[in-house]
Amino acid sequence: MVAPRVYEAMSKPIVGYLDPYCFQVIEEIQDELRKVFGTRNEITFPISGTGSAGMETAVANFAEPGEKCAVFVNGFFSERICEMARRQGAQVVRLEKPWGEVFSDAEAREFIHREKPRIVAYVQAETSTGAFQPGNAICQAAHDADALVIADCVTSLGAAPVEVDATGIDIAYSCSQKGLSCPPGISPATVSPRAWERLGKRTRPVQSWYLDLKLLEGYYKGHKYHHTVPISMLYAVHEGLALIEEEGLEQRFARHRRNHLMLVSALEKLGLRMHVDEGHRLWMLNTPRVPEGVDDAKVRKRLLDEYGIEILGGFGPLAGKVFRIGLMGSSSTEENVKLLIDALEKALAAESAQGVAEK
Amino acid sequence: MVAPRVYEAMSKPIVGYLDPYCFQVIEEIQDELRKVFGTRNEITFPISGTGSAGMETAVANFAEPGEKCAVFVNGFFSERICEMARRQGAQVVRLEKPWGEVFSDAEAREFIHREKPRIVAYVQAETSTGAFQPGNAICQAAHDADALVIADCVTSLGAAPVEVDATGIDIAYSCSQKGLSCPPGISPATVSPRAWERLGKRTRPVQSWYLDLKLLEGYYKGHKYHHTVPISMLYAVHEGLALIEEEGLEQRFARHRRNHLMLVSALEKLGLRMHVDEGHRLWMLNTPRVPEGVDDAKVRKRLLDEYGIEILGGFGPLAGKVFRIGLMGSSSTEENVKLLIDALEKALAAESAQGVAEK
Repeated sequence: MVAPRVYEAMSKPIVGYLDPYCFQVIEEIQDELRKVFGTRNEITFPISGTGSAGMETAVANFAEPGEKCAVFVNGFFSERICEMARRQGAQVVRLEKPWGEVFSDAEAREFIHREKPRIVAYVQAETSTGAFQPGNAICQAAHDADALVIADCVTSLGAAPVEVDATGIDIAYSCSQKGLSCPPGISPATVSPRAWERLGKRTRPVQSWYLDLKLLEGYYKGHKYHHTVPISMLYAVHEGLALIEEEGLEQRFARHRRNHLMLVSALEKLGLRMHVDEGHRLWMLNTPRVPEGVDDAKVRKRLLDEYGIEILGGFGPLAGKVFRIGLMGSSSTEENVKLLIDALEKALAAESAQGVAEK
Repeated sequence: MVAPRVYEAMSKPIVGYLDPYCFQVIEEIQDELRKVFGTRNEITFPISGTGSAGMETAVANFAEPGEKCAVFVNGFFSERICEMARRQGAQVVRLEKPWGEVFSDAEAREFIHREKPRIVAYVQAETSTGAFQPGNAICQAAHDADALVIADCVTSLGAAPVEVDATGIDIAYSCSQKGLSCPPGISPATVSPRAWERLGKRTRPVQSWYLDLKLLEGYYKGHKYHHTVPISMLYAVHEGLALIEEEGLEQRFARHRRNHLMLVSALEKLGLRMHVDEGHRLWMLNTPRVPEGVDDAKVRKRLLDEYGIEILGGFGPLAGKVFRIGLMGSSSTEENVKLLIDALEKALAAESAQGVAEK
């Protein structure tokens, strides 16, 4: 759900990419992004593409050809990071876990100490599984090994604490259409001073000109033409961030947590079990297991057709095994939880009755 | 200038990237894009980034590492193509001309026959100079040499005939904010069957995952998730293309040509000379020379401050030497030409009077 004010913002008259008003909007976006990322990084700006463009920005600038890139793989998007890093010519090493599990501090440390990579990547909030991966141990071990850490924060930004600086993340990126509740099209990104220094020492140019962070900094900081930024999308993100500022970050996080807990409790009362262990669950993306013998696609279709509620299915190893229920940004409300639970209870009962009838 | 209907379109409720309505919008965009590109290419779709992302898509997919890439360099954006091709590891060879001139058929043939490149690139409509580069001879010579041709159509699409098929262009890309009169954020692109076949023979993966045409085709044609497309920007382009359909392509091109000729005639009456020779001038971007002894920045500032009209200056080798006057999309009107000429006449007179007074 996108707030009406965000839609209105997108219909404001556009200005040129070197117009002082454009830079004013960009500067305000940068300030607000620093707050939601939890960082003081000067290099914090909106990449002109969707979330995957943010991922490619991180990988293309920092996973250099021939260098070792260690990836924590426990879901769909960490696989995507591996694929992008391979395309950059990096030497990818993986530590794997079943989808929905997370890596312990000891596992993280052992992997990094053993591999001694130049760059480490993990997904903080994995949309495909509903799991939250803590990053402190990863970042500490990486820094001990003189490696940089990329964290995918596509699903967390604006809905839960990302804590870039406190965690020690060097490069983080996100998107506009999840926790920020805007349409897709912008990928906010941030880079630590340590990573920026490393980037300055690159000997080969970044293969992507469009996503070259040094060139982008020339525009965002130096106001030197690089590409024509998507100004209407910047207006949207600007307004989305203003809504977050008005609600208050702590209040917003508390709302997401409260509605998540309410949902989990109600799901458990319906007899469903959560796929991700308590303590590692995302607040904005919930993954109850599909009850034994239930066809998840039929339930989802019933929810959509009869109640107008769209929830997602699992995919990859979790296909048919979990529902994926988003409660993010302006969609994370007590009312939505109640509507969904009521509808889900009826849809499950109807499916179950039909299953019995068919037997 | 963006039409009110385009702004309205952007505030329509967003749908998911796999929603049937999203694909309906995309298919209608594809149909309309084929008309404005002048092509029957099946591979014709909106890239999720601004014009430079379209350029990078063309270069990253087709200028392979180690292969020879021949670029016709006569302005700012052909330099950018060279830079992107170098970053892809291609062997770049250049044929240069002063900014504002174009390459003759004989020069084009001689260059391509001598260099025997795998890929050739030129800028059809060069925003930095106001020159239109014909492509027939380039494409014919390139195809004789078994090379593919990339044409930058950023400034021409929707304002003048691009004629992809009739010219023989293999890969063309554009933007949303010029001839299509939408906000920036989308880069329409098209690929010939010949180029698509070549792409299928690539042995190394394209370095960019985000701009990998094979993966993008999997989404646009196969409806398989790749990245989350910027749906609000697609709504904008969809509406912008509907406006073009309503006006009629031929009528639209005639309007641009008529207003261009009216502007040139009026500029010449003011005593200004056009930088680009007759017959090679763009209709949507006009570059009269700055009269001897006139400070172009002062004139432009006066136009902006006193008349609310923004025209651009030259840059690179043309800094201080030309004005750049855009007349594109919904801004190409007789009224705008009259307003500008009236204001420019007064601004030039005021500058001239002040110049005399200072002496």
